[in-house]
Amino acid sequence: MTKNTPTDILADLSDIVGAAHVATGTDATRWSEDWTRQTHWTPLAVVRPANSSEVAKVVQLANRTNTSVVPVSGNTGLVEGTYAQGALMLSLDRMSAVRAIKPDARIAIVEAGAILSHIHDAANVHDLIFPLYFGARGSAMIGGALSTNAGGSNVLRYGSTRHLCLGIEAVLPTGEIVDLMSELHKDNSGYDLRDLLIGAEGTLGIITAAVLKLHPKPQAYATAMVATPSLDAALVLLNRLQQDTGGAVEAFEFMPGVYMDAYLERFPDARPPFDTRHEVNILVEVGAVSPRDATPQTDGTIPVAAHLETILETQFHTGGVLDAVVAQNESQRQDMWARREAAAEVARLRPNVIDNDVCVPVDRMQQFLDLITDRTKALDPDLVPICVAHLGDGNLHFAGWPSSQDPAVHKAIKQAVDDTAIELGGSFSAEHGVGLTKKPAMQRHKNSAAIQAMRAIKEALDPKGIMNPGKVLPDP
Amino acid sequence: MTKNTPTDILADLSDIVGAAHVATGTDATRWSEDWTRQTHWTPLAVVRPANSSEVAKVVQLANRTNTSVVPVSGNTGLVEGTYAQGALMLSLDRMSAVRAIKPDARIAIVEAGAILSHIHDAANVHDLIFPLYFGARGSAMIGGALSTNAGGSNVLRYGSTRHLCLGIEAVLPTGEIVDLMSELHKDNSGYDLRDLLIGAEGTLGIITAAVLKLHPKPQAYATAMVATPSLDAALVLLNRLQQDTGGAVEAFEFMPGVYMDAYLERFPDARPPFDTRHEVNILVEVGAVSPRDATPQTDGTIPVAAHLETILETQFHTGGVLDAVVAQNESQRQDMWARREAAAEVARLRPNVIDNDVCVPVDRMQQFLDLITDRTKALDPDLVPICVAHLGDGNLHFAGWPSSQDPAVHKAIKQAVDDTAIELGGSFSAEHGVGLTKKPAMQRHKNSAAIQAMRAIKEALDPKGIMNPGKVLPDP
Repeated sequence: MTKNTPTDILADLSDIVGAAHVATGTDATRWSEDWTRQTHWTPLAVVRPANSSEVAKVVQLANRTNTSVVPVSGNTGLVEGTYAQGALMLSLDRMSAVRAIKPDARIAIVEAGAILSHIHDAANVHDLIFPLYFGARGSAMIGGALSTNAGGSNVLRYGSTRHLCLGIEAVLPTGEIVDLMSELHKDNSGYDLRDLLIGAEGTLGIITAAVLKLHPKPQAYATAMVATPSLDAALVLLNRLQQDTGGAVEAFEFMPGVYMDAYLERFPDARPPFDTRHEVNILVEVGAVSPRDATPQTDGTIPVAAHLETILETQFHTGGVLDAVVAQNESQRQDMWARREAAAEVARLRPNVIDNDVCVPVDRMQQFLDLITDRTKALDPDLVPICVAHLGDGNLHFAGWPSSQDPAVHKAIKQAVDDTAIELGGSFSAEHGVGLTKKPAMQRHKNSAAIQAMRAIKEALDPKGIMNPGKVLPDP
Repeated sequence: MTKNTPTDILADLSDIVGAAHVATGTDATRWSEDWTRQTHWTPLAVVRPANSSEVAKVVQLANRTNTSVVPVSGNTGLVEGTYAQGALMLSLDRMSAVRAIKPDARIAIVEAGAILSHIHDAANVHDLIFPLYFGARGSAMIGGALSTNAGGSNVLRYGSTRHLCLGIEAVLPTGEIVDLMSELHKDNSGYDLRDLLIGAEGTLGIITAAVLKLHPKPQAYATAMVATPSLDAALVLLNRLQQDTGGAVEAFEFMPGVYMDAYLERFPDARPPFDTRHEVNILVEVGAVSPRDATPQTDGTIPVAAHLETILETQFHTGGVLDAVVAQNESQRQDMWARREAAAEVARLRPNVIDNDVCVPVDRMQQFLDLITDRTKALDPDLVPICVAHLGDGNLHFAGWPSSQDPAVHKAIKQAVDDTAIELGGSFSAEHGVGLTKKPAMQRHKNSAAIQAMRAIKEALDPKGIMNPGKVLPDP
């Protein structure tokens, strides 16, 4: 093996993808920071292949030259997974095609650089949905969503990205292409390489294409704001709603009273969800795909909304619901969602926001909240906890404004959140992944036999350690 | 390392689990053949640990002594996955507890040796279901179901075993216990070892416990026999049913006319499904969990059944349905299921039945059937194809009675079925796994980069190659 200089590598890259598709210096600036703009780096270069064969050639070159490769698609991740100081970034943005929608089979075949909202649009033409929705959907790409097993607000009904994927194509760290582009719902032919690569954050290979599941598009939504006496009561309500709607609950999102206060402070013209302030505010959405549930009646009522109202009334009479408002039209529905979707903006109202992405078993949400309230108060008595949660999945984005300016206190609060989640059988990373940011938590909390097995797999598939090095796995 | 003799090993095993739980000779007979009783072997011994710590000690001993270990639970597999000539069989049958049902969280925590029907019973007490159903459920255990990612008749609505599992505990080939007993719906903390071990058929470790998802129990079923003009028309009907019931289709099972003929030959007192013979007969079942759909009305009708009847009538008028009968009571429903569940018995009516377990994309079922009919007729003009299928998943159990007695012709027919499935983007193994039986198909059809990656993972996790050796992966 000859030792190549960066100049040789750049020339070889240009041979593979064309000089126009190798960016360095200021041309690479847009790939030189993460979405939060808090982390910056200088890559060796950014290479933008046009197809999986070019991806394979680039990875083979990287292998020969011991060059680190950091794959990047929409670059909307939150855990520094695309940090690439001195590394070759491989951008999938030119591989953006939605190759096919097969409406009868209810699948989409896409390239890794396809933007989520483009996939949404392509499915919508056939009255189908690809139900992976989160704030960054206008720039996030499916390759990154698969690599991080992204979640969002509709996991409750449709599952995470992993559950929306039937097959993938990937380039392994050795530069070989594995074709697992299965359109099958059942395929027990050997180890589940698909799910191993999904969620591996680009450390075991680069996902280049995927077969995605589509679902029928709801023809109507019933959306409500509901106040319950506690999170335990909210879980009872969720189970009741799942039972009575046949599993049609699309979202079940928690916003505490203190979050609502902050929201109304930020948007003084917005309406409060209820006449009275409540501690536990929940956004419920039920989707109706069936004409029977979705078709407006002669009196203008929509069956799914009437049904939701009946269920909530019954729960009101048993004390399981303190207050409830069902959206009467799309504009009221949008107002309800606006409250939830402002979370990132609300969190940034004050400096030093501390945030987390933890998960606990759904029947321990109340216990978690009680514990973490006490523990954070012990660390910072005036902390304002503005936690929002995908309650149906047990996924809390615990955020808080500290009164203390001491970084050590901030760190202690973050760790208390992780530790409390772990103590209750939870996880320090629900949907954002590990990247660089959560490697210390991975080291502290993941059981060592599991980490050993992950390391063995990493070494087996990436013997030179060139693929997104330093991410996910704690340093030995 | 000292070289141990089998006698030493048996003594050491007795020290770990107690002499009463080490079976050899005739005591091991019940573990010395597979479910089909076609394959026999003589194991070194059968060891029956009481808990995962004993499993770990047994595996550590096997590692030290280079002893092959073949895990076994219910032993109802169909691909010789428990073949264990000269190997130490590790039976999970003593680890049979359903440790807990958590009704609010809708999970079950079980040991690997828990029998499926026991899990069903335990969930039923809480009006919940564990929706993994197949013929062998009275003896199959969850450990084997997970290791083979078993399917069944309800995958369409609830997914395969993989999709019903939140967490596992496993003993790796090195004898280390990995605790991944997550009760979480979202957990992105490192590589997906859970899904790697699920479906690995005991070659990467022994699953010892699991956290399972439970679902609300349907309170009523609407069941119908439907005749359609083609499988393509059946897919249109399925999509319509999914849309109109909000995804509540529990089963969509195909039986061709020739299968019905054979069924009626075997059970002369049974009723034919329709007054007229049809080529495409489909058993449809819709489950209603909501009281709104399930509660009998004052006139005795059950809403879900009335709804199914309306949908089928509409399809009848467009020509998408040729004939349909909706079960009016539980006894009629049982008659409908009896036709489908007799498949294994019907297949054995004549000798030399050729069977397969293939999957094709759902929109290519008709094309598959057309092609395979032509191709098998070319090989054996009088072959009687009595294929049944989980049509909603694209999973065909293609079976046929050959007129030829020539084993070479039988083999050619089996291969033609596999080859045709592969040609249409399908798989040679939908839900049964690979074991020993399908290793040749694995060699012929799986792409070589994928097999290489699987081998690398196997070597990384099982460097001594002691864990269920010779299964799944083709010999190098």
